[in-house]
Amino acid sequence: MRLSQMLFVTLREDPAEAELPSHKLLLRGGFIRRLSPGTYTYLPLLWRVLQKISEIVRQEMNAIGGQECLMPQLQPAEIWRESGRWDVYTQAEGIMFALTDRQGREQGLGPTHEEVITLLARDLIRSYRQLPQTLYQIQTKFRDEIRPRFGLMRGREFIMKDAYSFHANEESLRQTYQDMHRAYCRILSRCGLQFRVVDADAGAIGGPTAASQEFMVLASAGEDDILYTPDGSYAANVEKAVSIPPEAAPSPYDSVQILDTPGTETIDKLAEFLKISPTVILKNVLYQALYDNGMRVAVLLSIRADQEVNEVKLSNHLSRLAERYQASKLLTLTLADADIQSSWQGDPIPVGYIAPDLPDRCLGQTQKNLAPKILRLADQTAALMKNFVTGANEPGKHVGGVNWGEHYPLPEVVDVRKAQAGDRSLLNPEQILETTRGIEIGHIFQLGLKFSLPMRATFTDEQGSEHPLWMGCYGIGVSRLAQAAVEQSHDANGIIWPVAIAPYQVVVVVPNISDAQQMEVAERLVRELTAAGIETLWDDRDERAGVKFKDADLIGIPYRVTTGRSLKQGKVELTERATGQAIEIPIEEVVATLKERLEAALAVPD
Amino acid sequence: MRLSQMLFVTLREDPAEAELPSHKLLLRGGFIRRLSPGTYTYLPLLWRVLQKISEIVRQEMNAIGGQECLMPQLQPAEIWRESGRWDVYTQAEGIMFALTDRQGREQGLGPTHEEVITLLARDLIRSYRQLPQTLYQIQTKFRDEIRPRFGLMRGREFIMKDAYSFHANEESLRQTYQDMHRAYCRILSRCGLQFRVVDADAGAIGGPTAASQEFMVLASAGEDDILYTPDGSYAANVEKAVSIPPEAAPSPYDSVQILDTPGTETIDKLAEFLKISPTVILKNVLYQALYDNGMRVAVLLSIRADQEVNEVKLSNHLSRLAERYQASKLLTLTLADADIQSSWQGDPIPVGYIAPDLPDRCLGQTQKNLAPKILRLADQTAALMKNFVTGANEPGKHVGGVNWGEHYPLPEVVDVRKAQAGDRSLLNPEQILETTRGIEIGHIFQLGLKFSLPMRATFTDEQGSEHPLWMGCYGIGVSRLAQAAVEQSHDANGIIWPVAIAPYQVVVVVPNISDAQQMEVAERLVRELTAAGIETLWDDRDERAGVKFKDADLIGIPYRVTTGRSLKQGKVELTERATGQAIEIPIEEVVATLKERLEAALAVPD
Repeated sequence: MRLSQMLFVTLREDPAEAELPSHKLLLRGGFIRRLSPGTYTYLPLLWRVLQKISEIVRQEMNAIGGQECLMPQLQPAEIWRESGRWDVYTQAEGIMFALTDRQGREQGLGPTHEEVITLLARDLIRSYRQLPQTLYQIQTKFRDEIRPRFGLMRGREFIMKDAYSFHANEESLRQTYQDMHRAYCRILSRCGLQFRVVDADAGAIGGPTAASQEFMVLASAGEDDILYTPDGSYAANVEKAVSIPPEAAPSPYDSVQILDTPGTETIDKLAEFLKISPTVILKNVLYQALYDNGMRVAVLLSIRADQEVNEVKLSNHLSRLAERYQASKLLTLTLADADIQSSWQGDPIPVGYIAPDLPDRCLGQTQKNLAPKILRLADQTAALMKNFVTGANEPGKHVGGVNWGEHYPLPEVVDVRKAQAGDRSLLNPEQILETTRGIEIGHIFQLGLKFSLPMRATFTDEQGSEHPLWMGCYGIGVSRLAQAAVEQSHDANGIIWPVAIAPYQVVVVVPNISDAQQMEVAERLVRELTAAGIETLWDDRDERAGVKFKDADLIGIPYRVTTGRSLKQGKVELTERATGQAIEIPIEEVVATLKERLEAALAVPD
Repeated sequence: MRLSQMLFVTLREDPAEAELPSHKLLLRGGFIRRLSPGTYTYLPLLWRVLQKISEIVRQEMNAIGGQECLMPQLQPAEIWRESGRWDVYTQAEGIMFALTDRQGREQGLGPTHEEVITLLARDLIRSYRQLPQTLYQIQTKFRDEIRPRFGLMRGREFIMKDAYSFHANEESLRQTYQDMHRAYCRILSRCGLQFRVVDADAGAIGGPTAASQEFMVLASAGEDDILYTPDGSYAANVEKAVSIPPEAAPSPYDSVQILDTPGTETIDKLAEFLKISPTVILKNVLYQALYDNGMRVAVLLSIRADQEVNEVKLSNHLSRLAERYQASKLLTLTLADADIQSSWQGDPIPVGYIAPDLPDRCLGQTQKNLAPKILRLADQTAALMKNFVTGANEPGKHVGGVNWGEHYPLPEVVDVRKAQAGDRSLLNPEQILETTRGIEIGHIFQLGLKFSLPMRATFTDEQGSEHPLWMGCYGIGVSRLAQAAVEQSHDANGIIWPVAIAPYQVVVVVPNISDAQQMEVAERLVRELTAAGIETLWDDRDERAGVKFKDADLIGIPYRVTTGRSLKQGKVELTERATGQAIEIPIEEVVATLKERLEAALAVPD
């Protein structure tokens, strides 16, 4: 391809719209162009990258028996109502675009396809003899993000590979889950990425109990926090991670006392004022949960004060309590701010001085859609505390030396603390958790019967009896992967594409296009390289040599061949983008040298 | 691929939802499954077909310098307002799905991408040195069809290849248009289709004056009527076709007379009652045009009574008159039925007896949004009439022997008649037009400045002055092409895929899987065929031989290899799907024989 004939426009300046280095570089290199917040045109250079990633994904999916298909993007509301997710996706999280068609029917724009594929399985799978089955597609998905940002990282349109498997039993599901795990590792390795597999929270798709793992591309700009042990025995997304908290200090209060603690609404202030460790303070946090039937529930969570609440875990727990409130789903969980507190119309709440027995009269008179009693929960760290300090339900006052059972009834105990760096590993307490950041590129789930039960997708076994299908789902963010690769692999001059997903493998740069010899050698090299199956870009533009070198570095082509001064000795310069190393080699050795280097770089792992 | 492991379900019965043979066969063969009206899951077999078509399209687009990219599917309303098409696409024709995102911004779901690409060109193209440029994408498009039908023919989601070119002048545009013409012919030939290129109406996309041609796959179930001359010198979509109408008979009335013609509201009745040729009768048809500013206009079209009105041509003419009514677009054109007539609140209209001078008082008092005067138009066939018969503006009465200029002022003359089979060709009057039906698969347009002017997409020429970009657009319906191939190529037993787009090239059928020798030979053949690069399906299902043969015919794999009785003589049966011819050949000759036949079938035309 001659660069002079391509729609190729690079920018010298960093675009104002971008924060991440990868986002800036993709814009500057002419890979993407924004149409609206969160939607981008993938220009020809990026399209080649995306096609290469897709092809690697396809090969690895086909290798484990995946069958490629394509499902509609418009999805009728009815099927999301069958699975019980329409309201969650269009109201609470609100990430599904929805529209009404000219027949007056509601349609969602697919952010994911569990409903569609479960319907298909219900329709096509009858017998155990047809199982297992794995189907996948590579497709543009939609998410109506509140705040689309970071380029292709969090867009409103993005390309996903989503796969779904169906099984006669859990063991078969586990088998395919393991196959997928290996396939995902191979995909990321072949794309030239450094990554870590972590235990994950399954979120809205999998439901609170599903087994699931995330594939994290390591990058300091990643949105996800990962906790891991140095020995590699444990790694998890912080949303899901478990650990042993640090030991608590002994309490200085061995009998109950009222403490005058004016102006100590925060834990830091209180600890400093009393000169005690936060590990002897019990903190009580007020939330409001909103369920899909409109019911609001005040939630008072008690937790050891040096610990943070993991709201993902707390939401999962509250989801499991939905039935208790005649609801089927939790829609939102919000800290009870002043607005929420006043909507309860009850007694004033001693913010900063709350005790675990905050009275229910803070919720006022009976109100429709407000549960009359506070839901009280204690984190495991709270449950273990002795002679602790906590609020006295009165502004400016705390109490010390109090105990569960004696002074307060122990509420329902839950695990909702956030694991953090410095905690000890549950598996091996000698290992201390460390933290790193990652970009979530893949996610695999064991869904179990979550969709097949409500949607009645069943099969008949050898004895002729009917069972719900076991199901798994497996996603990779294809467009996000492209940007994650840039985030992980760039330098001050631009992108350093891994060879396997570079838009072109080689760029032949002619420093001076009015030099007939340079043009002649370049043309011959481009022809020979292309004939050898090497993807070659030819920078034949009427530009200064410096501009061409800068652009070659910016767009990150792995090898540059320059027809420069050494032409007189029958040589050209071969420069490796990643290392910057340049050598002069005889013209007739260019094809063989590059073929060898590229083959080595593209070797598929076992 | 082993059929026993594929999600492969065929139907014995014709599905009730399908009318067209191709639609029935795609459903029965397990190629597609309906999710909602007009949306289908493309199952693994069809997905292979679509990938093959896409790859042929890609090769031919790249060969003429096309650069592949991918644009967003969500398109902001603002850019459609810039081009002036938002209202037409979301209100009048109403074929664009629209939604409001959580930022409250209106978005359309792309049925086409002229706006997005013109914006991109405005952004990236500055200089004549960057021209010409051709970009294309292969993407799912959306159309909110009133009545989705015929499977993939008229769906609400469908795969299109859409290409757009930008030029410094019209000559360059014509050059690329010709390149596209050739590329489209090669694509359809390589896909194994019989087709015809016809002059087309450019419709809402191109605007009334754009040059454009359609690529019609010939099939009796096609939705489009094509007129053509037997010598091949002329072919056009009936919407656009021109021709010389048959000669008119001489009028029997050489002076004016009032004719009592009770009960002759239709032309047939009148011609029979008066015993005259319809060619001496002038018919006057009342329409109402609705413009985008809400203005309604009563249109009275006079035309020779043996001729039909081509409403596409009439709409194009009325579009060009929009400015006359302070509007920018025609939204709809409707026959003025009783409801419309009564909405005018004027004198009663003598339906069936209207004269060209129907008085304007039929429109009643001055109304907001109703033009006070009737817009009178005469087709060319009407303008040439002498001593004709027409209505007398009084029920039960016509007049004979009247003339333009003498009895009625001649209105604005237009060409809005529908050409039809039996007419003489304009290019060569000795050629009589014949008719056939086709499925529109491709459409190429010279858009000119239609989008670049309103959207200010310009470039700077060698002298430094700024000009709007010349533009072309070029579409192929990829998913529609797959079904058109089936419509053109099937028999009573099922589909006969052209080799180049068949989901697999060969199916190896084992009549009896408990026969160890049959399985062993089949396994070896599948391995050898696959190693030779031949796409091979292996029917190893535990089914009766008859079921397997029926399924192989139904899904239309070009060659079937059967490991049957002749195995004892070291032979297998090779059956060609298209002809039904079966031969017995030695096992060791299978690969070479098939390789030769496939290569011949896949030979690329010059």
